[in-house]
Amino acid sequence: MTKQELIEQIRKKKSFLCIGLDSDITKIPKHLLADDDPVFSFNKQLIDATNDIAVAYKPNTAFYESRGIKGWESLQKTIDYLNNLQNPVFTIADAKRGDIGNTSTQYAKAFFEELNFDSVTVAPYMGSDSVLPFLDFEGKWAIVLALTSNQGAFDFQFLQDEENKEKLFETVLKTTKSWGSEENIMFVVGATKAEMLRQVRKYIPNHFLLVPGVGTQGGSLQEVAKYGMNEDIGLLVNSSRGIIFASDGKDFAEKAREEALKLQQQMAKLIG
Amino acid sequence: MTKQELIEQIRKKKSFLCIGLDSDITKIPKHLLADDDPVFSFNKQLIDATNDIAVAYKPNTAFYESRGIKGWESLQKTIDYLNNLQNPVFTIADAKRGDIGNTSTQYAKAFFEELNFDSVTVAPYMGSDSVLPFLDFEGKWAIVLALTSNQGAFDFQFLQDEENKEKLFETVLKTTKSWGSEENIMFVVGATKAEMLRQVRKYIPNHFLLVPGVGTQGGSLQEVAKYGMNEDIGLLVNSSRGIIFASDGKDFAEKAREEALKLQQQMAKLIG
Repeated sequence: MTKQELIEQIRKKKSFLCIGLDSDITKIPKHLLADDDPVFSFNKQLIDATNDIAVAYKPNTAFYESRGIKGWESLQKTIDYLNNLQNPVFTIADAKRGDIGNTSTQYAKAFFEELNFDSVTVAPYMGSDSVLPFLDFEGKWAIVLALTSNQGAFDFQFLQDEENKEKLFETVLKTTKSWGSEENIMFVVGATKAEMLRQVRKYIPNHFLLVPGVGTQGGSLQEVAKYGMNEDIGLLVNSSRGIIFASDGKDFAEKAREEALKLQQQMAKLIG
Repeated sequence: MTKQELIEQIRKKKSFLCIGLDSDITKIPKHLLADDDPVFSFNKQLIDATNDIAVAYKPNTAFYESRGIKGWESLQKTIDYLNNLQNPVFTIADAKRGDIGNTSTQYAKAFFEELNFDSVTVAPYMGSDSVLPFLDFEGKWAIVLALTSNQGAFDFQFLQDEENKEKLFETVLKTTKSWGSEENIMFVVGATKAEMLRQVRKYIPNHFLLVPGVGTQGGSLQEVAKYGMNEDIGLLVNSSRGIIFASDGKDFAEKAREEALKLQQQMAKLIG
């Protein structure tokens, strides 16, 4: 999906909601466990219940890999299902990969060719040749970690460089944006540090941001929009557990929709 | 495998060689493609030919993921085979994972429980809660990226912190070592920057290091040993392509053994 197509979907659905499919098999409703592929059943019903109000879905690969081959099968079915919806959605493999060049190319093949995601999250620690291979795939995106939503973000991401007087996450923004364009790079900036979005926007006024941390992690949608929104909206705000585990009963998809709708209605107002 | 057991294997085999199973299906000998699982056939023959002179094996997960479910099956068979050798070997999932706490726990389950590797490589960018979950598994190891072997390492890993006057990789070493012990944390330090090993050893004199970059990437074994070896040897030096793709004919395993033996014989002298 191109940037322009994504913006069109956001305007059409009046939503910049991304739903995180952190589909932990130990937390999904028990009645699904009798199904052939419980995790795919769970995802499918969630997707059916929300794809008119969500613009993006983000399976978190860890929750699939932890189940080995069965998990990989659930992931494959989920992305195939997402790619065949009548309402087009932007798909994110939340995989946080990154390695030397020839290896990153293999990861890019895994997520862009084998699984056909629109985008994959990428860790920047190893620098240019770990990110560049993800940018060689036409119509695909690298979503690079800049400022993450967790407490551990304070360990390294705020270290201030002696020479250019910038924090590590600022240097990551400034350096990484030069490797690609607004059409193939997005950045992860956590909602739990919403006030930092103003600073982030100084470096990348026009890039899309993937913003996790609203909901269970405590981030505020209003603050994210206040500091992070741009003319193209420029935001994909993710909620995972707050939506997908809203109920552990047979009404889980209905309750998930209710939670998604609350966010989408706030988003519609913020889009204006 | 515990630190003590690893040291015993190194002393017994007179080797600190790790063989990287970057088993790219497009590069393995063509005659294997008729096999049921060509990549596993390739790995099995390499492992059979070298496990008396290598102490560790490091499948690089990207080369398996890029083949989807089939790749995951090859990886599963490979680790099962490694775990049932008569000569015990240390196993490394070179996966470079790292995410918020509940997600890192899932990655740890994937590699320590579902696949039963001894260790997994971890990217430090997201800080403590992205690394700590890997340290909660008895007898398992996190191998944290500090100074990588690629050109992109210069983008961020050498940024000097204004406050403590340390480079990012030094801060990663100093900070991360406090999260665990010499019994459950190792660090990645690239052989292409061997002279930096002296500096690395100031921060972590006793930890084991995983050192990629010897061979195709150009690092020198002698320099790595000169600057990085400690009383316990303290090194796992990896070679991937230089060994596993030494020949693309039916003699590939034999040629791989010859290349591995060259390194092992140098290592035996360095161990003394």
